[in-house]
Amino acid sequence: MKIEPRTLPGFMELLPNEQILFEQMKEKIEKTYQKFGFLPLDTPILELSEILLAKAGGETEKQIYRFQKGETDIAMRFDLTVPLAKYVAKNYGNLSFPFRRYQIGKVYRGEKAQKGRFREFYQCDIDIIGDGELDLINDAEIPSVIYNIIKEIGFDDFTICINNRKILNGLFESINQEKNSVEIMRIIDKIQKIGEEKVKEELEELGVEENAITKIIEFIKIDGTNDEKLQALQNLNIENETFKLGVEELTEVVKYIKIFGVPEKNLQIDLSIARGLDYYTGTVYETFLNDYREIGSVCSGGRYENLAEYYTDKKLPGVGISIGLTRLFYKLNELSLMKVEKYSMADILIIPMLEDLSKPIELASKLREKGINTEIYLNNKKAKAKFKYADKLKIPYVIALGEDEINSAKLKVKKMETGEETTVNFDVDEIITCIKNIQVK
Amino acid sequence: MKIEPRTLPGFMELLPNEQILFEQMKEKIEKTYQKFGFLPLDTPILELSEILLAKAGGETEKQIYRFQKGETDIAMRFDLTVPLAKYVAKNYGNLSFPFRRYQIGKVYRGEKAQKGRFREFYQCDIDIIGDGELDLINDAEIPSVIYNIIKEIGFDDFTICINNRKILNGLFESINQEKNSVEIMRIIDKIQKIGEEKVKEELEELGVEENAITKIIEFIKIDGTNDEKLQALQNLNIENETFKLGVEELTEVVKYIKIFGVPEKNLQIDLSIARGLDYYTGTVYETFLNDYREIGSVCSGGRYENLAEYYTDKKLPGVGISIGLTRLFYKLNELSLMKVEKYSMADILIIPMLEDLSKPIELASKLREKGINTEIYLNNKKAKAKFKYADKLKIPYVIALGEDEINSAKLKVKKMETGEETTVNFDVDEIITCIKNIQVK
Repeated sequence: MKIEPRTLPGFMELLPNEQILFEQMKEKIEKTYQKFGFLPLDTPILELSEILLAKAGGETEKQIYRFQKGETDIAMRFDLTVPLAKYVAKNYGNLSFPFRRYQIGKVYRGEKAQKGRFREFYQCDIDIIGDGELDLINDAEIPSVIYNIIKEIGFDDFTICINNRKILNGLFESINQEKNSVEIMRIIDKIQKIGEEKVKEELEELGVEENAITKIIEFIKIDGTNDEKLQALQNLNIENETFKLGVEELTEVVKYIKIFGVPEKNLQIDLSIARGLDYYTGTVYETFLNDYREIGSVCSGGRYENLAEYYTDKKLPGVGISIGLTRLFYKLNELSLMKVEKYSMADILIIPMLEDLSKPIELASKLREKGINTEIYLNNKKAKAKFKYADKLKIPYVIALGEDEINSAKLKVKKMETGEETTVNFDVDEIITCIKNIQVK
Repeated sequence: MKIEPRTLPGFMELLPNEQILFEQMKEKIEKTYQKFGFLPLDTPILELSEILLAKAGGETEKQIYRFQKGETDIAMRFDLTVPLAKYVAKNYGNLSFPFRRYQIGKVYRGEKAQKGRFREFYQCDIDIIGDGELDLINDAEIPSVIYNIIKEIGFDDFTICINNRKILNGLFESINQEKNSVEIMRIIDKIQKIGEEKVKEELEELGVEENAITKIIEFIKIDGTNDEKLQALQNLNIENETFKLGVEELTEVVKYIKIFGVPEKNLQIDLSIARGLDYYTGTVYETFLNDYREIGSVCSGGRYENLAEYYTDKKLPGVGISIGLTRLFYKLNELSLMKVEKYSMADILIIPMLEDLSKPIELASKLREKGINTEIYLNNKKAKAKFKYADKLKIPYVIALGEDEINSAKLKVKKMETGEETTVNFDVDEIITCIKNIQVK
């Protein structure tokens, strides 16, 4: 009796050609994080439930993978932020602040299974954590990281949306709606989805007075360039310190983002962004691919007051972002935006066409020594089977080595994409030069 | 009330400087696997228990992390071989054979907690899977991968030990001890640890006859160069087909390993290696760092008849190895063999010494564009705090940028290791040339 080989629903498992694409995307993100000097971190996937659930509640508790092993109540991490908080609190004395770390790893959420929803997925996070304080300008560096990553992944037409939670909070204070602020933000957050009238209705239902609703709508409808929006915020003449501080911070951050090299067209103040309920306290970000808004934000985050309050008395403010890589990859793949370029990690395949494999093996070793990823076909099949393998794997270049090639000390480098063959001497350097020449053409 | 920030026992969590070392080692292994044309694979950490435990038993069942989520009986993978078997059986029609894959990922075993034993650890595996058959020469390619990796990691004095299970099996057949073969192999396997006399004793206890014990011991004591050992095996004149086939295979594999470029001194036939009980059927490997034999084998594996018999009728023979990266890293670190070279991913730190950060930020962006990992210190602290940060992170080069530097358009590149300062023009290319010149010196 055989067991049917199957993978759990909600768990991504790719074929090799897709896996190569996935790895390339992951590497681009990682290299960009490193380019900005972020340090690598790798925390366990399992933690004490007590640690992971210190703050959690609601959906998180329901979705978490949690179990008992011996005496220990264990859970699988559902994000990379809580493990970071634990890590910084635990290793406070051994870290240099600001602590700039990236982490790319799998996280787990037992969500309802549905297409495009994953229970195991990669998050790619960066955070900058200050010891006691963290200058506002750090909020301006983050969008330049986002900008570089999205460009690297291959998109030009995208928008990094930015807002500051203090502006929203101050607005609510000024109209005496602090107590409703969480609920109002939740409603505002939906304006793109449900429209202005429905937002007004829901605010009324919440018991917000009409002139306060007018103020809120007036605020949401602020439009124009970033500079115009900042001017319009000033013009609202809202006499509230939090509001003013928020506008000041946003103005400063937007100014610096420009200096960080993010073009005007890729940055937009979006006053409707609130991002979650109670975590972020200042700058917030979302990022959209303009031709594919339906994907939702591909990179989000913001500024928080205190990273690790559940584990330490130290005040640790920070700013960070997260990319949900698995979902992003899935969506781009679904939209056929991921161009499969490689079916193999090898640059060259050597196909021996003779009994004695010494020469082919030696050639493969020499090519590898020169940094060329080289595979050698090691099975004694018919020539047809060998070339079929080369075709399927789409290895860019193939060299078939038989008695003739060895006796004449000449061989043919075949470019698989075009079928083009170039004859060169049996010499590693000449082969490499030949490949480079073909590539340049 | 704060929750004490702590990590589960048996779970490795590194400080940034160690994490950088770990990542470097992981990358060296991955790049070498790719250099030989192995394809990446990433399977879920969670699988159906039914899948993971199809073959398991004994220790594996006891150690596995297993739990119920809703209706589903789920377990965490305890190696990368079982998931590979499932994957190949599941995707058989979409793969090209021989299927050459690498996988680097975390696996989980709830072992008794003790120093140097990990419950979460990285395995770095390669396997070559044939469809129906797989030529013996593939067994000879594997040691050249091992050789390249151990060299990359920084060791010259190491031994790849090789044996063939058919030799042992045939020996036991020839002395009518097949029924005890598993048990005898277990005893032989310990000869390095417990010595010849104890091995004899245990064999006697098992009920092996004296002349059979003599034959076994005669066999184990075969010594000399690889060629001498192969000759001695012939000279035993054991009339058994399995034995003869084993000697033939080993002779062939050793011959080809040489052609694959593994030096004589790094390869040793070791007839006592059995490697586990019932999985491997032909060539087996273990790898030892000669000055640190106490670490045990750092890279092991072998040839198996059938990868996925629990999931498919297809016969899928293969050969592979596994590196237990977490344990290897831990041991090398404990022996102080891991030289911390980097405390940061950045090559340069720019320290602004003025109010307006425009020029420092622009310089950082330009350096990054040219491929230099560049961090900029963004917090408005006293000069002393800024330089302390640079010292602690040991970023190789530091540029302090103040009014003077900007007005004179000249700046100093400081090499942190030596304190050496070089004055150059305020120009990205000149800065990069300067760094490269210092590196060459």
